Amino acid sequence: MKIEAVDFFYLSMPVVTDAGDGSQDALLVRVAAGGLVGWGECEASPLTSIAAYVAPMSHGACRPVRDVVLGKPVGGPDDIAALAAAVELECMDLLQAAHTFSGIEMALWDLLGRKREIPVYELLGYPRAYPKLPYASQLFGDTPAETLAGCRSARERGFRAVKCGWGPFGRGTLSEDRDHLQAAREGLGPDGTLLIDAGQIFREDVDAAAARIGMLEEVDTTWFEEPFLGGAYDAYAALAARSGKVRLAGGEASHNFHMARQLIDYGKVAFIQIDCGRIGGLAPAKRVADYAAARGVTYVNHTFTSHLALCASLQPYAGLERDVICEYPFAPKAVAWDMSLTHLAPDANGEVVLPSAPGLGIEMNPAGMAKYLVDVEISAKGELLYRTPAL
Amino acid sequence: MKIEAVDFFYLSMPVVTDAGDGSQDALLVRVAAGGLVGWGECEASPLTSIAAYVAPMSHGACRPVRDVVLGKPVGGPDDIAALAAAVELECMDLLQAAHTFSGIEMALWDLLGRKREIPVYELLGYPRAYPKLPYASQLFGDTPAETLAGCRSARERGFRAVKCGWGPFGRGTLSEDRDHLQAAREGLGPDGTLLIDAGQIFREDVDAAAARIGMLEEVDTTWFEEPFLGGAYDAYAALAARSGKVRLAGGEASHNFHMARQLIDYGKVAFIQIDCGRIGGLAPAKRVADYAAARGVTYVNHTFTSHLALCASLQPYAGLERDVICEYPFAPKAVAWDMSLTHLAPDANGEVVLPSAPGLGIEMNPAGMAKYLVDVEISAKGELLYRTPAL
Repeated sequence: MKIEAVDFFYLSMPVVTDAGDGSQDALLVRVAAGGLVGWGECEASPLTSIAAYVAPMSHGACRPVRDVVLGKPVGGPDDIAALAAAVELECMDLLQAAHTFSGIEMALWDLLGRKREIPVYELLGYPRAYPKLPYASQLFGDTPAETLAGCRSARERGFRAVKCGWGPFGRGTLSEDRDHLQAAREGLGPDGTLLIDAGQIFREDVDAAAARIGMLEEVDTTWFEEPFLGGAYDAYAALAARSGKVRLAGGEASHNFHMARQLIDYGKVAFIQIDCGRIGGLAPAKRVADYAAARGVTYVNHTFTSHLALCASLQPYAGLERDVICEYPFAPKAVAWDMSLTHLAPDANGEVVLPSAPGLGIEMNPAGMAKYLVDVEISAKGELLYRTPAL
Repeated sequence: MKIEAVDFFYLSMPVVTDAGDGSQDALLVRVAAGGLVGWGECEASPLTSIAAYVAPMSHGACRPVRDVVLGKPVGGPDDIAALAAAVELECMDLLQAAHTFSGIEMALWDLLGRKREIPVYELLGYPRAYPKLPYASQLFGDTPAETLAGCRSARERGFRAVKCGWGPFGRGTLSEDRDHLQAAREGLGPDGTLLIDAGQIFREDVDAAAARIGMLEEVDTTWFEEPFLGGAYDAYAALAARSGKVRLAGGEASHNFHMARQLIDYGKVAFIQIDCGRIGGLAPAKRVADYAAARGVTYVNHTFTSHLALCASLQPYAGLERDVICEYPFAPKAVAWDMSLTHLAPDANGEVVLPSAPGLGIEMNPAGMAKYLVDVEISAKGELLYRTPAL
């Protein structure tokens, strides 16, 4: 079968705020081939990613993703790999292409799983999916009292792990950061797994990040995430040498396998966090999972959006029994919830398990999407290149 | 003074082919502040980069570049640095932002130089600009005879250095590659500087690239450029250990300082090639030049487009006397030539020197641009976000 159609749907909440909440909009991809459809999601700026799909060619190594993808065969995993390699070469100078292709690649795995009637994790080589321990991923409150309330709420809903990130952390005094951290631990309780995300706030300033290590240790922080710019591997390595029991995490910005590998090799992170909606889809993510496993580094999904993205992001390490932590969209906006009928709820044990259903195992909800569908029109050189398609 | 307006102009040849010729279209940026204007150029997919400027915000770390730039102060180099840092954090999840911002940053330096009536290289800290040895940058011919003719033509036009790249190289047999290399040397003559560009054709296959080292040595190749995917540092390092007198070059895909640094530190390249239209503009390029100089690595511009891009790309290493090689658009398409009135022609000695004029030292040609101006319209959420502005 060949790729017959690729359609992008830009969904958005009516109001988008400048909070660090990635679930306020979404870019869905629907791929059709051989009478089947698959769904994927780009974790990316929707309008920019659509433009990367339809933009006029600039030269042979700066083609729009559409030109590389449409009409190509998709009979098995090798075809997906060939397509990814073609995008790397033919869209070499189109930076956004990695984000655009990520959702397409995801949808191709979904479609292939549906065709063969097996879960994607089996296509990726895992005989079964192990349960994962979801952490409630949330932002620090504006005040320590809000941070405490957020963590307590997560605990009351059954989450044994919580991540607090962004917000005021790293922007004020050391004492203010300590207050937030202690509030987070108090809300979560003494036995919960506490994860802290700095959101790159220290850029390349190792001393500023190191000044927080003591207070992170006091509250028994399992990982300290993204203290620095995604590419500042030397800063990561310098902090890793000074961070004691607190281990570093990062990698969500990786837009190819190599960036994740280098954060492991040169940045010395102990947890590698991969967003399948950015790294080029599931195959490069699986390659990172294999690489990390061989080096004693723990793989973790990065997912702050929908349950489609969640079902996709768990596939690349579904079969790794020891990598148990998973990011879980704790309080997604309605757009991220309503787009699918399937949701992965934690079980009585507080764990989530991928469905053993074909493909990504998720049933989408076109009526739910329709409420948030954004009208977009792009034209250039006298040609209408994109208009929001019918669901 | 504050940034009052940022306008993007997408120019294109009427017909764009799939040759690896980056001069077939262009994305120009005009920035206005304090009664002055500055010009810059993104080396990027024009439509996609415009979309990254105007896209609706997705969340606080995925803002359009416009929201970060407009209205910001631009009184001196520190303001440009602050703006770049803001883009890194506030456009963190918008991959294309680096390409979009590159042209803006370039235009801000141009504007600042015009304001102070000094060349940009002085603003960057260089007392003077040294002459550079331009190499005629061209594609391999379809046949060795065409490759020979191309190199001979460059030599006859006074170029003492030539780069051949892309085309059939690495796609056929070893013997075919050898024929092209020998043709290139024959056309260039025995004393010319010969540079070879593989255009990432070997992806991560070190053995395939290493199989060409002997024939590259036979024709006295100064550098072997981009044998691998831009991020495959380990492949670069492995080949560097086996490449003898042939030194490796790369870096054009770097979209931040760190990527270039890592290609030096981990990829072991001897020549670091920076495109100011991709890396975020002139300041990160200058930082690479400083870093390279301290490590005995030679800095080279990457420029395959216009003389605006050329005048910009020489600024970050204008004052480095020992780094003499520069990429020179040998046969640019008319759009790349006509957009400016100023062109940097090699002197009687076959060298080029940056003008000691204010800013980037180039006078643009709106009438020349107008012939190639592409009509673009982008709307979303019921709002017209971009329409090609007046020149």
